[in-house]
Amino acid sequence: MHSLRFTAESSSHGMRERDFTVGGVPGVLWSPVSDAAGRAPLVLMAHGGGNHKKHPAMAGRARLLVSGCGFHVAVIDAPGHGDRPRTAHDEAEIAELFRARAAGEPEGPIVVRYNAHLADLAVPEYRAALDALQELPEIGTEGPVGFWGINMGTAIGIPFVAVEPRITAAVFGQHWPDALADKAKQITVPIEFDLQWDDEHIPRDEGLALFDAFASKKKSLHVNAGKHKELPRYEADSAVRFFARHFGGAVTSPA
Amino acid sequence: MHSLRFTAESSSHGMRERDFTVGGVPGVLWSPVSDAAGRAPLVLMAHGGGNHKKHPAMAGRARLLVSGCGFHVAVIDAPGHGDRPRTAHDEAEIAELFRARAAGEPEGPIVVRYNAHLADLAVPEYRAALDALQELPEIGTEGPVGFWGINMGTAIGIPFVAVEPRITAAVFGQHWPDALADKAKQITVPIEFDLQWDDEHIPRDEGLALFDAFASKKKSLHVNAGKHKELPRYEADSAVRFFARHFGGAVTSPA
Repeated sequence: MHSLRFTAESSSHGMRERDFTVGGVPGVLWSPVSDAAGRAPLVLMAHGGGNHKKHPAMAGRARLLVSGCGFHVAVIDAPGHGDRPRTAHDEAEIAELFRARAAGEPEGPIVVRYNAHLADLAVPEYRAALDALQELPEIGTEGPVGFWGINMGTAIGIPFVAVEPRITAAVFGQHWPDALADKAKQITVPIEFDLQWDDEHIPRDEGLALFDAFASKKKSLHVNAGKHKELPRYEADSAVRFFARHFGGAVTSPA
Repeated sequence: MHSLRFTAESSSHGMRERDFTVGGVPGVLWSPVSDAAGRAPLVLMAHGGGNHKKHPAMAGRARLLVSGCGFHVAVIDAPGHGDRPRTAHDEAEIAELFRARAAGEPEGPIVVRYNAHLADLAVPEYRAALDALQELPEIGTEGPVGFWGINMGTAIGIPFVAVEPRITAAVFGQHWPDALADKAKQITVPIEFDLQWDDEHIPRDEGLALFDAFASKKKSLHVNAGKHKELPRYEADSAVRFFARHFGGAVTSPA
C-alpha cells in the first residue's frame, strides 16, 4: 500500500490546501484550517475532461464543503490530466475528439470510449488514494466518505463507487449510459444526479436512462434547462446540502 | 372588485395567521409577526386534491417562507374543498374517483377531468384574491408574486400563471400533461417542477412531457425515487430557496 506524501501546503479563505502524491499520482487535500473539531467526513471529487485537480470548479466546490460543512475534500489528477503526462494514446484520442468537434460530428462515441479507458486506470488510483487518506488521523476509517464527479468525473466515479463500499453517498451527472449503466445498477447508496435538458452532446433519453439505472432507493435527478456547459451554480450548493444531509451536518454560508 | 375581509387572526411560531374571505371564497394569509420590515413579496399557494387551505403541508410551507424569508403566503380553498360546499357534480366526481380507485382502474382520466373543471372555477378566484391581497399596504402592487402548487395545485396553477402576468416565479409538479401542456407553453417565468420517478398514477413520460412544455428559459426539474405520495420533504426547502433566489432574499432557518 502506498502512503500519502505531502509536497506543499498553504492556507486561504479559511481552507488548508495540501498537495500530495500517492503511488506517483498527484492530488490535493482541502481541509478546515483548524483540526480542533476532530475527525470529519471526506468527499472525494473527480474533475472533468481536459481539466485538473485544482480547476476553479474543484476549488469552488471544495470551499463550499470545507467552509460550509467542515468536511475534507480530495481530488487526484486523472490519467493524462493536470500534472500527469499524456501517453501517445491520450494524444491520439484528444486529437480525434478535436477532429470530430471541428467536423461537427457527435463527440459521444469518442468521449465514452476514452473516458472508459481512463476510468480503468483511475479506479485503482482512487481506491489507493482513499486507503492513504484514511491513514490520516484527521480523516480515519470510521467517518462517511462521499464521491462527487460530473462529466468525466462520472465516467470515473460510477465504476469506482460500484466497487467501493466505503462510499456512502455520491453526486454524478452528465454522461452517456453506454459504458456506465451496468455499473450504475450495482450502486445502492443515495445519489444526486445532474442533467442538462438541452444538452447538445448527450441525448435526453440517454441521460435519463443512466439516472434510471442506479439501484439506489434514494436517488434524485436535477434537470435544468440549458446546454451541456450551462449547469447552474446552485447545483453545487444543492450537492453540498445533499452531502450535509447524508453525513449529518449543517451547511453554513462560506465566510 | 371584491375586497379582502379578515374574519379571524392569531399568531404562533413567529407567524401571523389571518383568515379572510374574498368574494365569498375563504382563504388564509400568513405573514411575519412584525411588519417593521415594510412590504414583502407574496407567494400564493394552492392545496392538493381532497385537502384544504390550512392542511399541514400548506402551513408547513408557509412557515418556511414566512420565518425563513419574511414573505407573505396566501392560500384559498379550492371549489368544493375546505370550508366550501360540494356541489352534486363534486360529489359525483369524487364518488367516481373512489370507485375507480377501489376497482384498481387508472385515476388519471378522472383526476385530469375533475381538476380541469375546478381550475376553470378557481383561476378567476385566484386572480380576485391577488387583486385584493395587493390592496393591503404590507403587500402592495410593486413586489414580486410567486405561485406554489403541486398535484391539484398544479392543475389550478398552470392555467392561473399562464394568464397572470403578476406571477414572476412558480413551483409546480406531479400532474398529467393532457389538460395542462398547452397552457404550460404560455408560461415563461422561472419554474421548479417536482416529479416522482415511481409514481403509480402519472406515467414517467407524461410527467416529463409536462415539464418539457414550459416555455421558461429558466426551468428546473427535481425527480425523486418513490411513489406519488413520497415527495421528499427537502423539496419544500428547495422550493423556498427557489423563491428566495428569484425574489432576492436569503433563507434563514425557521425558529
